[in-house]
Order: sequence, then structure tokens, then C-alpha cells
Amino acid sequence: MERFAVKGIFVDTPTPNTLRVRDGYMLCEDGRCGAFREAAPAGVPVYDHSGQIITPGFVDLHLHAPQYSYCGTAMDLELLDWLQQYTYPEESHYADADYARAGYGYFVRDLTHSATTRACIFGTLHTDATLELMHQLKAAGLSAFVGKLGMDRNSPDFYRESSPAAGLAETRRWLDTCADEHMLHDGPVRPMITPRFTPSASDEYMKGLGELAAEYKVPAQSHLSENPSEIEWVAALCPGTKYYGESYSRYGLFGGDVPTVMAHCIYSGEEECAAMKANRVMIAHCPTSNENVIAGIAPAAKYLRGGWRIGLGSDVAGGHTLDLFAVMAAAVQVSKLRWRYVDQSEAPLTMTEALYLATVGGGEFWQDFGEQVGLFEPGYAFDALVLDDSHLRSLRSFTPAERLERYAYLGKGALSAKFAQGKKLF
Amino acid sequence: MERFAVKGIFVDTPTPNTLRVRDGYMLCEDGRCGAFREAAPAGVPVYDHSGQIITPGFVDLHLHAPQYSYCGTAMDLELLDWLQQYTYPEESHYADADYARAGYGYFVRDLTHSATTRACIFGTLHTDATLELMHQLKAAGLSAFVGKLGMDRNSPDFYRESSPAAGLAETRRWLDTCADEHMLHDGPVRPMITPRFTPSASDEYMKGLGELAAEYKVPAQSHLSENPSEIEWVAALCPGTKYYGESYSRYGLFGGDVPTVMAHCIYSGEEECAAMKANRVMIAHCPTSNENVIAGIAPAAKYLRGGWRIGLGSDVAGGHTLDLFAVMAAAVQVSKLRWRYVDQSEAPLTMTEALYLATVGGGEFWQDFGEQVGLFEPGYAFDALVLDDSHLRSLRSFTPAERLERYAYLGKGALSAKFAQGKKLF
Repeated sequence: MERFAVKGIFVDTPTPNTLRVRDGYMLCEDGRCGAFREAAPAGVPVYDHSGQIITPGFVDLHLHAPQYSYCGTAMDLELLDWLQQYTYPEESHYADADYARAGYGYFVRDLTHSATTRACIFGTLHTDATLELMHQLKAAGLSAFVGKLGMDRNSPDFYRESSPAAGLAETRRWLDTCADEHMLHDGPVRPMITPRFTPSASDEYMKGLGELAAEYKVPAQSHLSENPSEIEWVAALCPGTKYYGESYSRYGLFGGDVPTVMAHCIYSGEEECAAMKANRVMIAHCPTSNENVIAGIAPAAKYLRGGWRIGLGSDVAGGHTLDLFAVMAAAVQVSKLRWRYVDQSEAPLTMTEALYLATVGGGEFWQDFGEQVGLFEPGYAFDALVLDDSHLRSLRSFTPAERLERYAYLGKGALSAKFAQGKKLF
Repeated sequence: MERFAVKGIFVDTPTPNTLRVRDGYMLCEDGRCGAFREAAPAGVPVYDHSGQIITPGFVDLHLHAPQYSYCGTAMDLELLDWLQQYTYPEESHYADADYARAGYGYFVRDLTHSATTRACIFGTLHTDATLELMHQLKAAGLSAFVGKLGMDRNSPDFYRESSPAAGLAETRRWLDTCADEHMLHDGPVRPMITPRFTPSASDEYMKGLGELAAEYKVPAQSHLSENPSEIEWVAALCPGTKYYGESYSRYGLFGGDVPTVMAHCIYSGEEECAAMKANRVMIAHCPTSNENVIAGIAPAAKYLRGGWRIGLGSDVAGGHTLDLFAVMAAAVQVSKLRWRYVDQSEAPLTMTEALYLATVGGGEFWQDFGEQVGLFEPGYAFDALVLDDSHLRSLRSFTPAERLERYAYLGKGALSAKFAQGKKLF
């Protein structure tokens, strides 16, 4: 059994409103947290980060790996122009194995050096490229659910599956390959059924994907209620549905037996919200993306305080950064604008709540698979970030809570070390 | 005459909608831009930044130097709690010369290494500390207008001037000292009359400050129409005024003969807007601060496109960062939320417009004092930022416009070099 300890100032959030601060030694045993001690434990090696803030690793519930290559560009375009001019052409390049290797190489390199230890990730339509991404993530020591995208309508001919049958056959080939490689239900990197969103997947395709999710017992992810015109479009495409979420739930892709992450959920009405809660759908709140693509501001404070399951997503490249510290700050900021312009009944999110969302909140998705994630508690995965905030000094001294807040807002700190499932990545 | 050239990819904005990109050599002669050449000019030393993006130096029209020490903390507090718990206690420390020297030391060090080359800065109530700040800025080679704060009401006893007469006497002593030190109207660092905001300055004090501004021929700065409750408060404090701006204009502190910067202007009504335009009041748009303190979103696109004078402000420490690249991105982002939630008649700001605001827009304030700022044109001040975006590479190649956008959004670039008035700061 591999055992070591890390020394530093451990900060985590046992509840959304509790910032717990403990200065001392955290034991790591076979990838999981052991006991916390104020004194050095005997007989184990120690990584000494005395005086540095250490948080749990962050969970990114929603991002598009192939879009990372143009992250932070073309933010002035309208969403549809952005998809046509950037997204679809770029994603289509991943048909080329060399391009996929290089592109995902950049992505995995930067994700490894980011605050993220776990993620739910969209790939492209291509089975082999998606496997390439999974292999690279696994080699890097990260945990992820990864999706081969499904899309058989409403995109250009050069980037669309030719039929539902063709898409489903590729999805099955992908899942079978994952099984052959012992990563269908095992190990840190696993597959996730991923229709892009309802307008991109015909009823027949969506039905087949729901059946595959049930057959292979794998989770699912997609987009939900991101903007008003999208909701109207889905209503027109799916006669008989009362709300957008039904376009997934009628095919078994909306939580319940198939654990599901839905990104955005900005304009979810009462019935949709009730269904998300009942089905334990995981909400991926993506504030940076929601600003950039002019979607709006999700009621994240309502979700968090009202018993929904919710975490954060960078939504790269609608979101402009992989850095979930920046996403935490944005979550607080847009919740303030929501308070000002949309709904004064819900107080803005606090930084402690934002940390909870980035750790315990997103980490809840892994509980559906028997893993405890997001806290420094015995039995929880030892995912940890050691923060170097030495460049952020001023003439004042700061509490650990203030140091964490400055690290998130100022954006100029760096990680001194990062652990994922007890493995030191750097 | 000192002459040199800089080689690189020069990007600037001759109009708000024009991103001009030129790869070659910019001549600098005695602190000002000379001709642009595609080939190396003979007989002058060259700083070779081939392949790097070079923008004009940025103008920060509004920030509070003594608040920099707690920048990025306490963003969860309500504005009044934030002022009482952080701002007033911190600013009051600047009565101590050692504290002022150390605190402004950190501020000037970080401002020097930021994208800012020129700024309009609030100090504290203390004359000597304000002079200390001016000396340090001058030594660092930056250009700034700096204000000794005026405040004789509505703040705690430990941080308030005892009477209008006392405050005015100190203001006069400060201006006389500036004159003695040849920095009243000369040199890069000059004084600016600075009542904190109307609720902080009695009528008698404000009247005296207006008289001093006229007598000494110095500009002025303050806050305007930042949030609805403040506007109600000002209306109650100033019977007979039809709008907030009148609380300044009736004392000669609202543009016209006294060039004036007003921060925020989020809720300015028609009459106030008309007066700002007529008086050529400079608007400091502070999107990061406006989010953080839950103020709202100023109609910056309307101001820019409608003929108002407007630039950007970090508003540290309501704003959480000195980095005007981050403020540029935030200006674009909040303008999108404004479009979504407040007013769909005005399209969101573009990144080109944001660069214009950070350079030419804010630079217009210096035109009132005979200086041309914000472009790479002959005769303009040679203020320049050389961007190191090598960490932001991906497998794609990017246009200069895309590189600039990524630099602003990703927040992980650095400056390779910085020039202010032709002096290389690093």
C-alpha cells in the first residue's frame, strides 16, 4: 500500500456554506485520503507545502476537448456563425488520426496543468479520435467520462453522421472497444453517451443512444435549455414534448438509471426543474460560456440551495478558459448580475459556495459510480491542488479564505503541485 | 534627441471598429511615435520583438491605489459592509508615512508590470501620502493624474476630514506643494481634484473644491450614478438637483473648463447623459467593479457609439484586478448580458471596441492637456506593450486579432516589454 502525507493548509467545503480550514498533515493511502493530523505522522514520506493553501481537485462537468484549440477566439461572433466558422470545421479535422493526436496532446497537456482533476468531456463524432483522447487522459493520470459525439442532423454535410444506423454502429464499436480495453466500467477514464443536443440528433438516433446507455450501463451527457430560441427549436422538432428535457427523458437519457449531466439549464421551467430533481440529473453550470455566447445567467444559487445536484463546467470553447478558478469567480459575478437584473429573491453565490460547486458539487457525479470526491475526508479520492500565491502578496496579511479568493479572482497564481487519485502529477 | 525603433506586429484602433495590423518597425523619437516602416530604419538601435503583438499602452481611467492592498478579497460582502470593514480602515492607515511608502510601493510595482501606462488614480485623504504616491509613480516612469481624496461626511470619525475648511486647506497645501515641485501642470504625474462622491462631500466642501479646480486649473474626478440607491441618496442630500450629475456641475466639477472623469455612469438618465456629452465629461467604464459590487451594467456600447467620451477603469479594488486586458474581456462579456437582459437595441461591444476603449478612448482625456495618446501615429506618445503569448499556443495558428483576443480572454500571457513615453520600463 502506497502511503504518504502532504503538509499544508487544507481548505474544503463540508457544506456549501462551510469553508473548513485545517493546517497540518493529510495522509494519503492508496489514492484515498486518510486521517488528518496536526502533527507529522511517523514513518511516511511527506510532501511539505507548509504555508500553502491546498484545495480538493476541481471537477469540470462540461467541456469540448476538440474546441480547446481555438479557445478564446471569435468571441464576437454570433453563436451560429461561431459554430459554422469555427466549431464544425475544427471538429471535423479530428477524422485525421495525426491531427487528433496533436490536438488532444495540447488539450491534455494544459488540462493536466490546470486545476481540473476530473471532467465530463465531449469529443467529436470520430470513434478513433475519441479513443485517442481517452488514452491520453488515462496516461496523464486524470479521471474523466468522455463522449463520442452523436450528430445526424442540422449540421454541415462534412460534419454529420450519415444515418442513425451508422452513428449507432460507431457508438457500439466505441463501447465495445472500451470494454475490450477494460475501460467501460473500470479505471479512471470511461465512456459517456453524448448526443450533441436535441437539434443535432434525430428521434431514431436518440432512441438508439438511450438503448445503448441502458444496455452498456454507461452514463450520458448533453445540453439543456441554454437559450430561448434553442428551446423553441426543440419544441418544434419534438411535437408532444412539454419541455426540452422530455426530448431526452422519453429516450431514457435524463438521469434515473442512466446518470446524466446536462449543461446550462438556464431557462428550465418548473416541470423541467422538477424532473431534473426527481431524476437526480446533474446540472453543469457554465457561467463563462453563458456570458460569451450571450445565453444568459442560470439560477445556480437556486439550484444549489434548493436541492438540485449542480457543479461547474468550463464549457471550453464557448467558455474561454479551462481554469475553473476563473469559472468560480465568474459564477459569483454573474449571480450578482442575475440578482440585479433577473431575480432579487435569491442572494448571489458566495466564493465558498463556488468552491463547493467546483469540488463537492461536481464530485457528486462520481458518487453514482461508488467514488467519493471533493473533500479531504477519509475514504475520499486524494485529488488535491497546492496553490502558489506568492506573486499575489501585498503589504497586508490574508486569511486562508482571503488567499483562496484572491487566487480565484486575480488569476495570476500558479499550482505548485497537483495530485489526482493520490498520484502526484507534478 | 533619443531615437530607437521597435520591431513587431503593431495592432491599434484608428476607429472603434478598425483593428489596424502592421508588421514592421515603429520609430520612437524623444518619447513619441515617428514613422512606421516595413524595413529596418538605418542608424537607430532596434528592439527586436519580431512575431510578437504590440499594442498601445493602456489607460486606466479609474482606480483607488490604497485599496490595491486587499484587491480580490471580500467580494462576497455587501458594498456598505465592504467599505466599513475593508476600505475605510485600510485607507486610514495611509496617515502613517511608512505604511504609505510600503503600500504604494506594492501598488506601483504591480502597476508598472501591468498593461497600464497611464491612469487617473484616487489616493486617500492624506496629503503627504498622496504626494508619496505621486513621487513613486513619477519615479516608475508612468503617467497619471492623482487625487487627494476629499471627504467630510458620511464616513467613520477615524476616516473623515474634520470640516470643509480643514479639507480645503489640505487640498490647497497639496496643490501648492505640487506647484513647488513642478508637477502642477508639468510632467507625467499631476494632481486632480477628487471628492470621493457626493454623499462624502458637503455642499460647502464641494463648492470649495470646484473653486480650487478653477483657480489652479486642474482637472477633477469622482463617481456618478453607480447604483439606484446611491442616486436616491444624492437626490435626498442635494435638494433642487434634477439629476446626480448636477451635484457636481453646480460647483464647476462636471467637465467644461474643468476636464472631469466620472466613474460608472450606469444609471444616467437623458438629462445627465446630455450634460455629460455637452461638457465632454469623460466616462470611466468599470465592468469588473460593476459586477463585483452588484451595481449593474453601464450602457458602454451606447456611449461609445453615440459620441460620448469613454474609456475603461479597473476600479481596483471594487474591481478585482489591475489587468486591463481582463477588464477589456469583461467589458465585452457584460455588454452581452446587458443585451440579453436590459436592452436589445444596442449590439454588444466587440473586442476591437474594447481595445479602442483601453487605448484611444481613455487616451482622449490627455488630449485636453495637449497630449496624443492611444495610437501608433506620428506625434502620439510612444506607450507600448509587447505581448508574450507563447504559452497560449495550440495546434492552430492564429491571426494577430485572434492572438490579441486570446491574450485578453485567457489571462495567462505576460508582457515581454513595456514602453511609456518612449522609456523602456522593462
